[in-house]
Amino acid sequence: MPRFALKIEYHGAGFAGWQRQKDHPSVQGAIETALAKLQPGDHTIAAAGRTDAGVHGLAQVAHCDLVKDWAPFRLSEALNYHLKDQRVAIVDCAPVTDEFHARFSATERRYLFRLISRRAPLTHERGLAWHIKHPLDADAMQAGADHLLGRHDFTTFRSSICQADSPVKTLDELRVEEIEIPNGVEYRFHVRARSFLHNQVRSFVGTLERVGAGAWAPGDVRRALDARNRAACGPVCPPEGLYLAGVTYPDDPFSQT
Amino acid sequence: MPRFALKIEYHGAGFAGWQRQKDHPSVQGAIETALAKLQPGDHTIAAAGRTDAGVHGLAQVAHCDLVKDWAPFRLSEALNYHLKDQRVAIVDCAPVTDEFHARFSATERRYLFRLISRRAPLTHERGLAWHIKHPLDADAMQAGADHLLGRHDFTTFRSSICQADSPVKTLDELRVEEIEIPNGVEYRFHVRARSFLHNQVRSFVGTLERVGAGAWAPGDVRRALDARNRAACGPVCPPEGLYLAGVTYPDDPFSQT
Repeated sequence: MPRFALKIEYHGAGFAGWQRQKDHPSVQGAIETALAKLQPGDHTIAAAGRTDAGVHGLAQVAHCDLVKDWAPFRLSEALNYHLKDQRVAIVDCAPVTDEFHARFSATERRYLFRLISRRAPLTHERGLAWHIKHPLDADAMQAGADHLLGRHDFTTFRSSICQADSPVKTLDELRVEEIEIPNGVEYRFHVRARSFLHNQVRSFVGTLERVGAGAWAPGDVRRALDARNRAACGPVCPPEGLYLAGVTYPDDPFSQT
Repeated sequence: MPRFALKIEYHGAGFAGWQRQKDHPSVQGAIETALAKLQPGDHTIAAAGRTDAGVHGLAQVAHCDLVKDWAPFRLSEALNYHLKDQRVAIVDCAPVTDEFHARFSATERRYLFRLISRRAPLTHERGLAWHIKHPLDADAMQAGADHLLGRHDFTTFRSSICQADSPVKTLDELRVEEIEIPNGVEYRFHVRARSFLHNQVRSFVGTLERVGAGAWAPGDVRRALDARNRAACGPVCPPEGLYLAGVTYPDDPFSQT
């Protein structure tokens, strides 16, 4: 059966998250329903990262198996036609071998977190970024973030419902970018690792925001990490600023498209 | 009576435009209603540019007269409190003299138009940019745009319901910027003039898109301009990509804030 990798963009608002749920709209469910329009029957797709409710996708990757050997371009166009009333779009599509698995073949995930600091409520970016009203110190946030790089036991930054076997992960990048935008300042957190614990990025950003606001010293992040205790974490920030921004595979399925 | 200049950001979707209307939500109406919460009675505010339905504000400017001598920061906070359920925000506020008039004192308006080219439907940017599916040639669009610079009779690029006394205007800038964005290419049109005719920017962009697509040669823009005939204009593009991005005054009221 031909297998296809799909690169997927979606707006997290209005979805209970990536994963299919019985009584709530999900991104997985939306795509599986679209697939059923092309090939009647049940479909189960697997994704690189199961994002939570409200979290956005910029380049989520999933794979699907179909009977017909679709031209990838036609497949993405047909799926987008059936997804057109929802904020989900197939932005790339490529044939892959049976060995490719969107989740298990992935060697790196990249997340982007958008935080906007300004007094006034957001208008265009509402639901697309975390809004806070006070100013932040980007250098302090970066100094705090630097303590998290490398291989650590991230128990402090892991949700209590996390199902990962081990809290030990290697964080390859946590870069804080400050951008002047019309009527405010945006902070972009670029985060990269082979894999993540549940709520890890939102736990990082919520903690670093406390550093940026001056409530924590950068070194307090190190102490929180060393505590290996969920209670030592800063407040977990809301989902609407988080984007799954990219997934890396040893053999990029989209490199030829 | 103390007069205040307000810098206003708004999401154009959900509004029938800037101007107050009897049976439709408008940005002006939303702000006047918020003002009435602070000072009972009727309020009439004047704006630098009366944007159409669906057009966004990044830095619209209006002025209002109030009895109380508000601290500007408190005034913007109080208005934002009453506007919080709508996508309208006061992003700056400053006291001005009675001679200041948001519309008549303005010496320059700046517009931004966002166009995104990609096959897949938009998700995060839906309603925030004009989406087209084919590729565009930015250099060709810029070459076409250059014909429009300077003082001309812009009858071709003026809506039939335009109420300006004269079709002669001076266009100071029409710059096409090409930006790689995740999953597509964005074209930003930066447009600057003392004042504009009705639908002028959307007529420009709709015409230049035809040039970018290869349907028109850049020189055809000159011929359309010289025709001084509305029928010679390209298709007027939709409003959702257009932003009133800035207004210039001889004495910037917001320079001290």
